[in-house]
Amino acid sequence: MNSVRTDAAEATDLVPGLRAVLLTGDSERLAALLADLRPQALLGVWYELEAEERERVLSALPPEPAAELLSNLSSEEQPEILESMASLQVAEMLEELSPDDLADTLQALEAYDPERSREVRGFLDPATLAVADALTGYDEEEAGGLMTPEFISVRATMTAAQVLTFLRRAAPDAETIYYLYVVDADQRLKGVLSLRQLIVSPPEARVQEMMSPDIISIRTDTDQEEVARIMADYDLSVLPVLDDDDRLVGIVTVDDVLDVVTEEATEDIHRMGGAPIDIDYVRANPFLLFRKRASWLVLLVVSMTLTFNVINHYEHILAEVVILAAFIPLLIGTGGNVGAQVATLVVRALATRELELRDYFRVLWKELKTGMLLGLAFGLFMTGYVFFFQSEPRIAVALGITMVLIALSANLVGASLPFLFRKLGIDPALTSSPGITTVMDVLGLLIYFRVVIWVLGPLLTGEAAPAP
Amino acid sequence: MNSVRTDAAEATDLVPGLRAVLLTGDSERLAALLADLRPQALLGVWYELEAEERERVLSALPPEPAAELLSNLSSEEQPEILESMASLQVAEMLEELSPDDLADTLQALEAYDPERSREVRGFLDPATLAVADALTGYDEEEAGGLMTPEFISVRATMTAAQVLTFLRRAAPDAETIYYLYVVDADQRLKGVLSLRQLIVSPPEARVQEMMSPDIISIRTDTDQEEVARIMADYDLSVLPVLDDDDRLVGIVTVDDVLDVVTEEATEDIHRMGGAPIDIDYVRANPFLLFRKRASWLVLLVVSMTLTFNVINHYEHILAEVVILAAFIPLLIGTGGNVGAQVATLVVRALATRELELRDYFRVLWKELKTGMLLGLAFGLFMTGYVFFFQSEPRIAVALGITMVLIALSANLVGASLPFLFRKLGIDPALTSSPGITTVMDVLGLLIYFRVVIWVLGPLLTGEAAPAP
Repeated sequence: MNSVRTDAAEATDLVPGLRAVLLTGDSERLAALLADLRPQALLGVWYELEAEERERVLSALPPEPAAELLSNLSSEEQPEILESMASLQVAEMLEELSPDDLADTLQALEAYDPERSREVRGFLDPATLAVADALTGYDEEEAGGLMTPEFISVRATMTAAQVLTFLRRAAPDAETIYYLYVVDADQRLKGVLSLRQLIVSPPEARVQEMMSPDIISIRTDTDQEEVARIMADYDLSVLPVLDDDDRLVGIVTVDDVLDVVTEEATEDIHRMGGAPIDIDYVRANPFLLFRKRASWLVLLVVSMTLTFNVINHYEHILAEVVILAAFIPLLIGTGGNVGAQVATLVVRALATRELELRDYFRVLWKELKTGMLLGLAFGLFMTGYVFFFQSEPRIAVALGITMVLIALSANLVGASLPFLFRKLGIDPALTSSPGITTVMDVLGLLIYFRVVIWVLGPLLTGEAAPAP
Repeated sequence: MNSVRTDAAEATDLVPGLRAVLLTGDSERLAALLADLRPQALLGVWYELEAEERERVLSALPPEPAAELLSNLSSEEQPEILESMASLQVAEMLEELSPDDLADTLQALEAYDPERSREVRGFLDPATLAVADALTGYDEEEAGGLMTPEFISVRATMTAAQVLTFLRRAAPDAETIYYLYVVDADQRLKGVLSLRQLIVSPPEARVQEMMSPDIISIRTDTDQEEVARIMADYDLSVLPVLDDDDRLVGIVTVDDVLDVVTEEATEDIHRMGGAPIDIDYVRANPFLLFRKRASWLVLLVVSMTLTFNVINHYEHILAEVVILAAFIPLLIGTGGNVGAQVATLVVRALATRELELRDYFRVLWKELKTGMLLGLAFGLFMTGYVFFFQSEPRIAVALGITMVLIALSANLVGASLPFLFRKLGIDPALTSSPGITTVMDVLGLLIYFRVVIWVLGPLLTGEAAPAP
């Protein structure tokens, strides 16, 4: 029995053997060794190799496994590795790719080296090229960019026997033969017939009797997150894609969508952690990481200088009662934590469509109550804690009130900002924990000093009466 | 053409009509209205209804659509709604569920009301019950809890024609007929035969000639995240599940895994945002939210009191140079942001298995360099910024050095904690942005005061010489 677990171990074991063969320069032994490897084992070995070794391995592979390997590499890796190979050999490999993978690879090559791309295209079959080019017009993050044109379509008047005969011929080129799409002369979708239904039907049954006319379909411009949601909600493994004229132009299969869900989750997680970085972390070098991360951190640092301005403005208060400075991190830090927590819950619920814009006031009302509870709990704690260290009860009361107001406002800010971002057409995930923390640092300080002046005013020489 | 978008609109339009019929109490009209609704439209209507209306709708549905609706409800909602129905009617509905859904529903009912569960079980077909009970022994988050026992198995000696005949009879009960599993007399998995391969083979071909012996399989205790990863890596739509004796006991289909990926992403996102809360945000009331959120926030607030202790300890320094207090939020806030950012990148890479424990020193070395770059950039900014407001160059230098050290240590802490958590068997996502922020608040203050004493020591009356 083949267990998947063996692949990783297998890969590590294989590297020394492969290296030994590469060193001998014996291309026949190399080809024989590679022929024994399963695609995923080969991919496991791949990342253990040096750039130069990778080129030799790819060149030694027959076009089909080479294409399979290539389709698993990222759009940054693909053109780099193709750079060293002869254009004819590249073209032979590309011919083996599925149309959607070919379209992606050609786009990557075009962006990396336009001249090389022209050369490779010259060696490709014009028909293959036409199918791939039809796909490159679509946005990568929409159904058009995910779909493959290799579906099977049948006519409503065919019999089960005719469809089966047709299938035997068409099957090798199709992405899936488990769902057959019934179209009219204008390529308009009329129904779907599952292979399952076909198998259990008598040979003379007509497609129109067997098919289901009730089809869920998407458009070429349906966003990939929406595609994933529809597939999950309806438990579908394939979705037909229609163009603006309702013509069937492709299908999206669930295995492509599985990758999309993981990618989208990574994007959301990065954004929410204040790292909206579109790079491969593992392979990025420190300079790239610095450039990408700093651009976002600079925004936060500059916003954070507002905290200096606030404290500087109220410096005379701290000069009089120095101990007040000691509570600053506890107060504003808790504000940031409360805000980040609720923002996380709201952002995720917006992303999974459990919440929509119209739910804002319901969420606000709920978080007003939750925020009051959190504020009262932490406010009481704060009053007790301060009183323990500081016998002056006025200071303890001022700190307690500040904590109530900070926790409550953090809760409202954290619940509101994601909705505001969605309303403005910005990804709510960009509110981010660091972003909320920064907002709450500034807001928390303003609340703190206003409350201190209000409660302790008469005790402070500079503030004879409560400020207006 | 049916577009999915219409469902939500449809649902909202349907509610008034449905309410009107419910008010008349005419059960025939209600049944007729419900019969016209597609499952997803019905689910859309469902959440717009009051509890009492839901009970009447569910009771009015025939067993099959009622079961479909039930299977889409959460394990908290299921027992509540079943409470008001007659046990016989509940049993009739449950009979229509797939074994994995039935197992989940029975478990939910058992936890909610053991007596009721016994009563309902009494009405169920013993064979159905046995299949479901076999599934309840497995962990919900492992392959055993995801799988269905409704797969189709064939013998290696059967011919294509025999398999097709067998399929026509067995198809209605199977979760998928697109992959047929070849087992021996001991139910041990020998190969897999796709319906695609079967269709294109001559009728007299034997299963052993058509099947692929090279199968990727999982165990009943394979974690669901691992299952999702294998399906995505190998582009599979079904995975066979083996028990400890290598016997085929079930299959996991990709549509179940699609939900898992979304759930796991939600869990990770909640944890990383400091809200490791296993509740449905949209339906939780403020008291539940308060209880769940506070338990985690209390930990952060209590840790945060350390900041008070640090500042209190060095209060004499702030008393002498009050302006130093004004930089505290800027310094420690930036530390938190830098740390949260790198922790987010590392946690996600660990979750997607792009990073493993063994990569720790490579990551540390990379983040040492990235942290130096960030530290130098922000340190220079800080020195310039402080010098602009504060002509004393020593203070500007002290602040610059502090910023370098805080950014660097935040980067190292943020990169290390997720690895430490993984090493300890804790989910790295629990390091969380608020957690890192809290650690960096305390560490940042310690760094700040040590640097201030070191650089400004001679200027401070209380610190005649640099501290050891």
